[in-house]
Amino acid sequence: MKIVKPVYYGDYLQLPKLLNSQAPESAKYGDAAHDETLFIIIHQTYELWFKQILHELDSVRNLMEKPFVPSTDLSIINARLERVTTIQQLLVDQIQIMETMTTIDFMEFRDYLVPASGFQSLQFRLIEATLGIKPHHRMEVEKQFFTSRLKPEDRHILDQAETKISVFELIETWLSRMPFSQFENFDFWGEYSAAVKKMLDQDFKIISMNPILDDKSRAMELKNLETTKITFNTLLDTNLFDAHKSQGKVRLSQKAMLSAVFIYLYRDYPALQMPFRILNNLVEIDEKFTTWRYRHSIMVQRILGSKIGTGGSSGHEYLKSTTERNRVFLDFFNLATFLLPREITPPLPANLINQLDIVYDSTKGKIL
Amino acid sequence: MKIVKPVYYGDYLQLPKLLNSQAPESAKYGDAAHDETLFIIIHQTYELWFKQILHELDSVRNLMEKPFVPSTDLSIINARLERVTTIQQLLVDQIQIMETMTTIDFMEFRDYLVPASGFQSLQFRLIEATLGIKPHHRMEVEKQFFTSRLKPEDRHILDQAETKISVFELIETWLSRMPFSQFENFDFWGEYSAAVKKMLDQDFKIISMNPILDDKSRAMELKNLETTKITFNTLLDTNLFDAHKSQGKVRLSQKAMLSAVFIYLYRDYPALQMPFRILNNLVEIDEKFTTWRYRHSIMVQRILGSKIGTGGSSGHEYLKSTTERNRVFLDFFNLATFLLPREITPPLPANLINQLDIVYDSTKGKIL
Amino acid sequence: MKIVKPVYYGDYLQLPKLLNSQAPESAKYGDAAHDETLFIIIHQTYELWFKQILHELDSVRNLMEKPFVPSTDLSIINARLERVTTIQQLLVDQIQIMETMTTIDFMEFRDYLVPASGFQSLQFRLIEATLGIKPHHRMEVEKQFFTSRLKPEDRHILDQAETKISVFELIETWLSRMPFSQFENFDFWGEYSAAVKKMLDQDFKIISMNPILDDKSRAMELKNLETTKITFNTLLDTNLFDAHKSQGKVRLSQKAMLSAVFIYLYRDYPALQMPFRILNNLVEIDEKFTTWRYRHSIMVQRILGSKIGTGGSSGHEYLKSTTERNRVFLDFFNLATFLLPREITPPLPANLINQLDIVYDSTKGKIL
Amino acid sequence: MKIVKPVYYGDYLQLPKLLNSQAPESAKYGDAAHDETLFIIIHQTYELWFKQILHELDSVRNLMEKPFVPSTDLSIINARLERVTTIQQLLVDQIQIMETMTTIDFMEFRDYLVPASGFQSLQFRLIEATLGIKPHHRMEVEKQFFTSRLKPEDRHILDQAETKISVFELIETWLSRMPFSQFENFDFWGEYSAAVKKMLDQDFKIISMNPILDDKSRAMELKNLETTKITFNTLLDTNLFDAHKSQGKVRLSQKAMLSAVFIYLYRDYPALQMPFRILNNLVEIDEKFTTWRYRHSIMVQRILGSKIGTGGSSGHEYLKSTTERNRVFLDFFNLATFLLPREITPPLPANLINQLDIVYDSTKGKIL
Repeated sequence: MKIVKPVYYGDYLQLPKLLNSQAPESAKYGDAAHDETLFIIIHQTYELWFKQILHELDSVRNLMEKPFVPSTDLSIINARLERVTTIQQLLVDQIQIMETMTTIDFMEFRDYLVPASGFQSLQFRLIEATLGIKPHHRMEVEKQFFTSRLKPEDRHILDQAETKISVFELIETWLSRMPFSQFENFDFWGEYSAAVKKMLDQDFKIISMNPILDDKSRAMELKNLETTKITFNTLLDTNLFDAHKSQGKVRLSQKAMLSAVFIYLYRDYPALQMPFRILNNLVEIDEKFTTWRYRHSIMVQRILGSKIGTGGSSGHEYLKSTTERNRVFLDFFNLATFLLPREITPPLPANLINQLDIVYDSTKGKIL
Repeated sequence: MKIVKPVYYGDYLQLPKLLNSQAPESAKYGDAAHDETLFIIIHQTYELWFKQILHELDSVRNLMEKPFVPSTDLSIINARLERVTTIQQLLVDQIQIMETMTTIDFMEFRDYLVPASGFQSLQFRLIEATLGIKPHHRMEVEKQFFTSRLKPEDRHILDQAETKISVFELIETWLSRMPFSQFENFDFWGEYSAAVKKMLDQDFKIISMNPILDDKSRAMELKNLETTKITFNTLLDTNLFDAHKSQGKVRLSQKAMLSAVFIYLYRDYPALQMPFRILNNLVEIDEKFTTWRYRHSIMVQRILGSKIGTGGSSGHEYLKSTTERNRVFLDFFNLATFLLPREITPPLPANLINQLDIVYDSTKGKIL
Repeated sequence: MKIVKPVYYGDYLQLPKLLNSQAPESAKYGDAAHDETLFIIIHQTYELWFKQILHELDSVRNLMEKPFVPSTDLSIINARLERVTTIQQLLVDQIQIMETMTTIDFMEFRDYLVPASGFQSLQFRLIEATLGIKPHHRMEVEKQFFTSRLKPEDRHILDQAETKISVFELIETWLSRMPFSQFENFDFWGEYSAAVKKMLDQDFKIISMNPILDDKSRAMELKNLETTKITFNTLLDTNLFDAHKSQGKVRLSQKAMLSAVFIYLYRDYPALQMPFRILNNLVEIDEKFTTWRYRHSIMVQRILGSKIGTGGSSGHEYLKSTTERNRVFLDFFNLATFLLPREITPPLPANLINQLDIVYDSTKGKIL
Repeated sequence: MKIVKPVYYGDYLQLPKLLNSQAPESAKYGDAAHDETLFIIIHQTYELWFKQILHELDSVRNLMEKPFVPSTDLSIINARLERVTTIQQLLVDQIQIMETMTTIDFMEFRDYLVPASGFQSLQFRLIEATLGIKPHHRMEVEKQFFTSRLKPEDRHILDQAETKISVFELIETWLSRMPFSQFENFDFWGEYSAAVKKMLDQDFKIISMNPILDDKSRAMELKNLETTKITFNTLLDTNLFDAHKSQGKVRLSQKAMLSAVFIYLYRDYPALQMPFRILNNLVEIDEKFTTWRYRHSIMVQRILGSKIGTGGSSGHEYLKSTTERNRVFLDFFNLATFLLPREITPPLPANLINQLDIVYDSTKGKIL
């Protein structure tokens, strides 16, 4: 039996320390601004949640780093990724609290904070690095900022983090190890390719016969269709795919990509449920950060107008430019492109179904 | 190829009909109240969503009614149940729109609506019946209301619906068919029972040695522990369980209950992921309706105070009394009681794990 | 010009201290539980937000304590109360993060935390005291808990706080100072009383003539109506009101209550907009804490079932019992009872309107 | 007394009609797709809410069209605008329900809907027109679409609506009538201009002395500051302002703009509370539609990938391009730019304060 020392709530949470960590700069100049406390506390809660997100992502990385990932671990990975997205939703909602601060209230202490800036959040950069942002993915302005504005010790920690294997790389390896890019005795991708042809031919007819399209619109639609055709060709042709990848249009290897497409197509089988949810949760993590950046940039513009931020730069423009950047799992986000209607999706052979399926029901022969 | 007739947005949605279905009563008396339109539209959107919820629950019922439910259907069932909870969340949030109507605004048309009442929503009653509310679960006041206030044709439809098999019954049957309440060559429930004993002994020691409990509190805690012990005994003893059931303290059969406990304990195995999510989603459906009733009752009190509602009765009190009522899946909600810490949860034998598990990884022998 | 010392983000937020304040108990016993970090961080963010709420409520108290509250201060008070409700909404939403922790995950470290408990949050008790909860409003179990489970220094701080004037008392005094409970040369409350009579007579006729009510229901409705009549009498009769108050059925003085009713009735005049919003925001603060308690109690039951909590007691039952307790501004919540339809609300005399109104428009004589 | 005909819930809401307005196209081709019902109902609820929004905006227009708007009407206008934003929030949240439909599910009926498209929502276009979008504000693609894809009767209704006076125009006129752009015996805008100069000088010094800026960054910051200076000059110089306006960089007249700046600066006075909230609510309406467009475009991409939509065009690209378009009240959104710190904001003369203020407190001479 565990004999444990009694624990007191306030000591356990280290509240004396925690609740004495708010020192408004304005007060130091004899000019205490009421709202600076909010400004500090809101950023502190962000940092606490960033610590929690890192805790989850690090554990996911550890679980994925094993040469073989048992299925019960997939379940844990999903639970933790879903926790991350739940926290991210709170981070988005939290912006509403910041919006209770008016421009005039902010002006009362803004000048005391120069040149501090949210850019300098080391933990946020570590989250990006853990997910899979490498230095070469970053905009020039970000890289310069890290050099000029992060403390050397913080920059060092970030540099270290960027050399470690990322969640993206681990997921890619895991997908590549899956046996879905090529099957024995079953030309799945050949059948898939035939189904795609069928679907695109159908689209071609719809566009051609659409009574309401004028010639110009029809031509445009047909051009779009041609692009879609090329997209599918690129997926299935190794040379085209690799060229695409070397241009930075896709991050995943073709092997990993094909596994991902297969998982998305046959996600309803028990064996693919958890892999599907992992990919989906990673997309959700990207999306939530994108939404957060978007809402954040609107909030900054609403409070600052075209004024300069505390970091001495016009934050809104930068923020806006990064809204759509730094998405790690864009390849999964775009998977919808490669899906097919159920009726033309290639049926799987019985022995493969047998591997993907589980029978739960005692009325069938196989127990479970 | 499909040759289809061109479709126009407004015709497809039958907008001319839909957008001409708002006829404020106040206007008929030459006394048009601005906010009555809101009152109508908010209730109409509720009814549209109720139709959608019924559409989903009916399809779940159809899928579960088959003598054997294939695992890919479980995936579809989960998706549809999750859609129901997503809709329910919107129904809760929608109350905020109703709250933009003030008491004074409502008073402008309230008297024209007598004796209409939200009680009379047939579809809401059909949802309850489809989930598993039978006449004997209802409060007396509800039953009287149905007799006196529903139109005969509506009452007839509800009567019919109550005789059909419910989602609750189908889930119970499905759980009972599972092979988890008794295993060949493996006394799982004996081992579980031993683990429970270990856990409760530990709790006993914690209470006994807790330095901060005075005698009175300690006695109370030990009494609580005794109750917990009885709860476990009841789960495992068929006679006790059946007595419990006949008193209405539990709805599930013991066999179904044991399957549910097993699923909750070993949910991380791929074979149990989807069954676990089904149970969890059903709890969530109950919870969301409970939250909706709670928020609704607060809103009514805030707008009406102690005034009478349009149905001629003081709605708030009734609503409050049903907040915690009409929960169909309470047995699943209470499953937390029967869970064990990981360290003492009985390990499963290899052949059973083999059935519950799936190997995804080509580095292991078994493909997938 | 201000010459300020450059500020670094991490130093400003005291991150080295803040991010080193998470020391899981489980790790101290060589048995680190992954989810304990979440448990710590979620409670720490709660405490940071409690500090912010106290910061706002204290400032509101300071502003209201002045013998005369200028109208521009009312605007600030409203902004700060609305910030409190925005924060409270986040606290409610934050429960979803806690719900990502399963029973089994919680069991891994629960025993190490005995007998710590959320009851011991000093700041939460200070918020209650600042709003207006005095010792005699508390349930016996709470009072005992404070004596036996709070550290002496924390109990002392709470004792001190309970002797200070509360927001409730300041609001009551402010309302009592308003000239709305009695007017010179205008028998407002007499006219109000006549309007009430008219309204209740109308309700009587509606109930009497309602074709669908059977005798039993009609009798019940008429009894409800009688109760409503008594409620109005109590509002307007000083002796009845004081008796009501001495029974604890109302907290406000009659004078303050009448001012509140007047404000609610004529809120559309500019002079009453801000007072109305203050009362409304205080109701919202109560509501949000009630919702938080409700959601919190459901969450605890879902995670713990009927198990004991870390404080050694079955938390769910206590939490449930307090859901509807500790509401400070219930009298404002119930104001809907005293409102009237616009058509029978007494019109105000021109000189009074002149005081309540502001003319913004240069097309009228009075500038503004 | 009102004698009213008894009302039945289902008849009042015209449920037989409403709940029989869902006719999936797929079913007509013997190929019923389960999810098409969701697709219909979600769009029908959108249209019902659009009707409600139009109901509110039309009433706001009617109230504002009077030559003089009494202050009690301002209160009503605010309540209705806030209701619109509450509804809009629901419309945003509702996207989550659509997101429960997968690509594969959508593919089952997509082809039957050609060429219907959400573009064809007449009511949404009427909302835009009512707020203030005129044909010359629209992108070329939208205008073409209206010509080629709206039914003639719908196009006619839209054409009519675009000729009516919009909320934007009414607000502008109302602001222009306010006496804030020029005061007798008080050179407010001269004092404002001096305060601006002081603030910008301070900003200049902060940038010049900022120790962490390198030469390049410093030069960039100073250029930003120069831009800000020009922005202020433009506000205050009629010629510059009019040139700006004729280039489409601002929609409001200078007179209206100055009133808006004055209202934002002195919003804490009772007389300016309601005007301030009106402007703020209009910004919120813009913001919520922007957020809705943004979330909608992400949802479409996630479901469709790069596939063509039911309207026969790649919807995502168009949707993305309109996210930031069609904002009517951008001038108010940008008002933060013109605010000043409290300490340098010009104090108002006593007689002006007297007009803006209201004294509520019987301890002061003036009653109220």
